[in-house]
Amino acid sequence: MELYSERGFAQTTVAEIAARAGLTERTFFRHFADKREVLFAGARSLQELLVSSVASAPDSVAPIDAIAGALAAAGAVLQERGEYAKQRQAIIAANTELQERELIKLASLASALAEALRERGVKEPAASLTAEAGIAVFKIAFERWAAETDKQDLPRLIRDSLEELRAVTAGH
Amino acid sequence: MELYSERGFAQTTVAEIAARAGLTERTFFRHFADKREVLFAGARSLQELLVSSVASAPDSVAPIDAIAGALAAAGAVLQERGEYAKQRQAIIAANTELQERELIKLASLASALAEALRERGVKEPAASLTAEAGIAVFKIAFERWAAETDKQDLPRLIRDSLEELRAVTAGH
Repeated sequence: MELYSERGFAQTTVAEIAARAGLTERTFFRHFADKREVLFAGARSLQELLVSSVASAPDSVAPIDAIAGALAAAGAVLQERGEYAKQRQAIIAANTELQERELIKLASLASALAEALRERGVKEPAASLTAEAGIAVFKIAFERWAAETDKQDLPRLIRDSLEELRAVTAGH
Repeated sequence: MELYSERGFAQTTVAEIAARAGLTERTFFRHFADKREVLFAGARSLQELLVSSVASAPDSVAPIDAIAGALAAAGAVLQERGEYAKQRQAIIAANTELQERELIKLASLASALAEALRERGVKEPAASLTAEAGIAVFKIAFERWAAETDKQDLPRLIRDSLEELRAVTAGH
């Protein structure tokens, strides 16, 4: 991560990353499929957090509020990572290939959330629409937080973005 | 396209595509960067249609309705292509690499729509949220139409999906 920030993602080799981390290249490849994966290693735990949060919401909670609660919980975790999460976002924003990988991971998150909603008995297309809307809110709130156009905390920004989505879809 | 349907995308070579189309490989590569691009050649005209439709909506039209009108217009064009659009969707659904390319194209469409809204004076994050919500609606309606889970016409499905998004974000 430090190396990517210092000299750019494309200019950093696996050998350099491994050396900085005190690993051999072989050990590096036991943990990561390629140098991009270093940046996406947290995606699985984020997905597990989101899915378990949706699953554990009380039955009385509306689907969109179950998603909102899950995203706020994920936002709190990312906020704790603070500068790391912001640096990571800056590295991704500077590289098309990484942006593409990020889009794919976000699409996987949306699919996992839709599945979690269907398990709560939500029908299609409501489940997919709610999940996709949630991920759109999350993506936009996170980008604003990472770019520091808003100094607010991330869970707050996620909730505000959802309110804004409600307002714009209602036609205001 | 026929070849992709007959034997699968991965098993089809550029030489075979060019031969079926009566082109040399060299001519093929003058038109397409690679064999994937054959499937995404229509993306630019779709984007132009969406952007010009948003730009030409009367000032009194709310952002979400400008987007809805643009998506319905694009839906009508895709519906005219009928079986071609459905075949294309089936090829993409069967190949991870193509699904990724499709996600990237959809993200570009969302960016272009957000820019078109900002040019109408819509502020951020409302512009991005409206555009992302519109693309989510479009994606889900298109998948349903292509999979024929709904026999309705595509512009109608797009409008219904938007209504459903309104309902789910409102918490119903």
